Amino acid sequence: MKNKEKHNYGDDFPITAFATTPGNSALTLIRCSGKESIELFASIFDSPAKIKDALGNTVVHGWIPGIDEVLVSVFRSPKSYTGEDCLDICCHGGPVAGKAVMEAVKSAGFRDALPGEFTFRAFMNGKMDLTRSESVMELVSAKTETGRKNAISRLSGALQTEVNEIKQILVQVLAGAEIYLDYSEDEVSAESDESAKEEIAGKLPNKELAKQALDRLQKLYPSWQVERIYQEGVTIVIAGQPNAGKSNLFNSFLKEDRSIVADTPGTTRDWIEAWINIKGIPIRLIDTAGIRETKDPVELIGVERSLELLKEAQIVLYLVDCTIGVTDKDRKFILEYATQAEAHGQIYLLVWNKIDIAPLPQKLSTYVDLMYKVKNAVSISAKTGEGMDDLNYEIVSAVMESHKTSDVSASLGTERQKKLIGTACTALEEALGMAENNEPLDLIAPLLRESVNALGEITGEISTADILEEMFSKFCVGK
Amino acid sequence: MKNKEKHNYGDDFPITAFATTPGNSALTLIRCSGKESIELFASIFDSPAKIKDALGNTVVHGWIPGIDEVLVSVFRSPKSYTGEDCLDICCHGGPVAGKAVMEAVKSAGFRDALPGEFTFRAFMNGKMDLTRSESVMELVSAKTETGRKNAISRLSGALQTEVNEIKQILVQVLAGAEIYLDYSEDEVSAESDESAKEEIAGKLPNKELAKQALDRLQKLYPSWQVERIYQEGVTIVIAGQPNAGKSNLFNSFLKEDRSIVADTPGTTRDWIEAWINIKGIPIRLIDTAGIRETKDPVELIGVERSLELLKEAQIVLYLVDCTIGVTDKDRKFILEYATQAEAHGQIYLLVWNKIDIAPLPQKLSTYVDLMYKVKNAVSISAKTGEGMDDLNYEIVSAVMESHKTSDVSASLGTERQKKLIGTACTALEEALGMAENNEPLDLIAPLLRESVNALGEITGEISTADILEEMFSKFCVGK
Repeated sequence: MKNKEKHNYGDDFPITAFATTPGNSALTLIRCSGKESIELFASIFDSPAKIKDALGNTVVHGWIPGIDEVLVSVFRSPKSYTGEDCLDICCHGGPVAGKAVMEAVKSAGFRDALPGEFTFRAFMNGKMDLTRSESVMELVSAKTETGRKNAISRLSGALQTEVNEIKQILVQVLAGAEIYLDYSEDEVSAESDESAKEEIAGKLPNKELAKQALDRLQKLYPSWQVERIYQEGVTIVIAGQPNAGKSNLFNSFLKEDRSIVADTPGTTRDWIEAWINIKGIPIRLIDTAGIRETKDPVELIGVERSLELLKEAQIVLYLVDCTIGVTDKDRKFILEYATQAEAHGQIYLLVWNKIDIAPLPQKLSTYVDLMYKVKNAVSISAKTGEGMDDLNYEIVSAVMESHKTSDVSASLGTERQKKLIGTACTALEEALGMAENNEPLDLIAPLLRESVNALGEITGEISTADILEEMFSKFCVGK
Repeated sequence: MKNKEKHNYGDDFPITAFATTPGNSALTLIRCSGKESIELFASIFDSPAKIKDALGNTVVHGWIPGIDEVLVSVFRSPKSYTGEDCLDICCHGGPVAGKAVMEAVKSAGFRDALPGEFTFRAFMNGKMDLTRSESVMELVSAKTETGRKNAISRLSGALQTEVNEIKQILVQVLAGAEIYLDYSEDEVSAESDESAKEEIAGKLPNKELAKQALDRLQKLYPSWQVERIYQEGVTIVIAGQPNAGKSNLFNSFLKEDRSIVADTPGTTRDWIEAWINIKGIPIRLIDTAGIRETKDPVELIGVERSLELLKEAQIVLYLVDCTIGVTDKDRKFILEYATQAEAHGQIYLLVWNKIDIAPLPQKLSTYVDLMYKVKNAVSISAKTGEGMDDLNYEIVSAVMESHKTSDVSASLGTERQKKLIGTACTALEEALGMAENNEPLDLIAPLLRESVNALGEITGEISTADILEEMFSKFCVGK
């Protein structure tokens, strides 16, 4: 019955979740945390005393009778991930064994953890700030090595340190301003009001420090654009007429790197897609080859889907068959879709295929009128792999073109962080602008305070229950 | 370079493997075992001393610098799974984080573990007998709750105990016989040879005990038939003419239980299949609906595949549309394939579909001539789910029909165990037969010894390196 109740973030009810995916693996890990969790688990363990008496950070071996042989790591508050009493139950793997243990654990009085609830508790108990909490999720969902490295840097506190340093500078500036304000209120008499204001105006103390802080914030801000590419990846659609070699190109990409190919089981699609990794950028590669152009009403649905996928793409690789050159159908397609592409922030790359059997220059003339509609022309042989390096280079250039690499040691990991850095930046810019125009300090100080508060919100010093719940509910269960 | 060398089971080189599947999970577990594994891991850990000085069964928190924040459970020989020094490294989940940690671990000097190598070492170091080693793999690959329960019973030693008890009885019988043999050799003089042999003949001591042992072996032997069904499952193919409702039936099965639906990513198939669970029996359900009957040469390949799948099936559910009744095409198909079915140990179940729109009796007459070709007729509506319980019941009855449930407390878990029990049984039966015929003890004793040896081989008391390698290489990596 306990498990049926509605629960919210913020209680200390004992919770449990799978920390690893039950599947065809040797082991499965189940996490438990919360008040009396050690005592509750002991009630289903064959030697309850061994669990109850276990010191923190020790491993106990035993049986959940009739269910499984397990290794239980016991963590005692506050020395645990969440800061509460915790247990990591290591049981046998496979699709069935973990489930049986999970049922036994829940029968002992644990409820299912909400998404991100373990990390939420870790934050609430002061085990980590918000930038590090968020980096936990970024790390788990990192699709490439570059994404992982950036997340690890934030997990180790690089962003927290940078944000706190900038905040300290601003606090110093703000403190200076407030001393002046206090002085002006106390000491300046009403009659000398005008001249006193003039005295104070333009005298934002530590203006150079404030400029330094702004400089650091401005460097941090665009790092999210690049970061988001590494986190969320880029969708590339392979388009082109039948027999242009779309499936060959798709397979050629996969041949080089199948490392992050992830199929979603249980879904049926009319198209083929796979995640690949091009120089650390996760690419969702879509081949629409399965969708045939036709007048059959059923297959027409396929064509419509194909066009929808085309709209989702950040990059379209439009394949042209070298042995034929650009046909009327190619021209019609490119003129119709590539023309709108730039307005939608899309990039069309014209890719000449089959250079192994027909040299490029012979047919290049057919392309001249399209040169301004498509971004770049790369020539490849999807079959032999020739030119694939050039194509990869063009893809990375196209993705990164608009985003200059920032040279800060820390980078932003979430949209939330970016928004708050944006708020801090805007307020500080405005404050500095007013200081340049010699506007009164009592108008400048609130802006400085806004900037400081936004930075405090990034690390979670200042936060509301709503914002926290919203944030952690995006996590996966078990974290 | 170390990792490139060829390795065999049986060394104590430090090994490592993923114990959980790296995927979209919160955590990933990496296992390490072998000589100096604690020192090797310490070399890549941020506080080497904390690892080196850690007591057995304790958990150390720290960083593999630049790679990940980890929790490391330290186990010291002999108190570990393998009996060697072991480490369980709990790092962040996701497709990338675990790989980076694994690379770091291997760079420290660990090599990839061979399949089942952890359990192999556990066996070699006397941590478990062979029946329990095998049950570890059975547990991990259990597809249903029943399969899991049986494996757990063997893991807890039920089979080991039963086999050892039977062996003890036989050892006692054998010892009695050998005392007689010693006596006869020493004391009976050559001239009284014939009469002495007569005296000894038929006097197998403890014959009742031997009969008891045989009875227990005979009960154990057939348990593998039932066990194999729970472990390996049964393949069911849904066949029938177009529009008989094959896909509806497939979906109707899935609706009831999607719990063990497992798609194999990366493979393309012309048919749809899923693992479902009917009363604890794992069923590989195949719907050949995607394969159309046609004269098109490409699609003809599909028809051929369909017929191959049909041959693989233990059970064929042949669907007939109630609204049409049995057609000439149905009749042709059933006469052609169902007729051969029994010879191949296959079962054809005739399933009347669409009883929600056409009552069964009206069309039953069309079926009379086929009654002896198909096993049972069940009537269902795949659309409404009506009759699905009956169909499930018929499937389970068909699967279990030939296998009487044995009432022993232990059951056999592998083909290997079954063969050895078979050997033990045959030898003991022969020995008892000879004893009945008053044949000389010196002919009976070797048979008893053969029986005892076979039982010793089941638990691994007697084993050769070849047999062990063959056995453990079937395990998954990480176990």
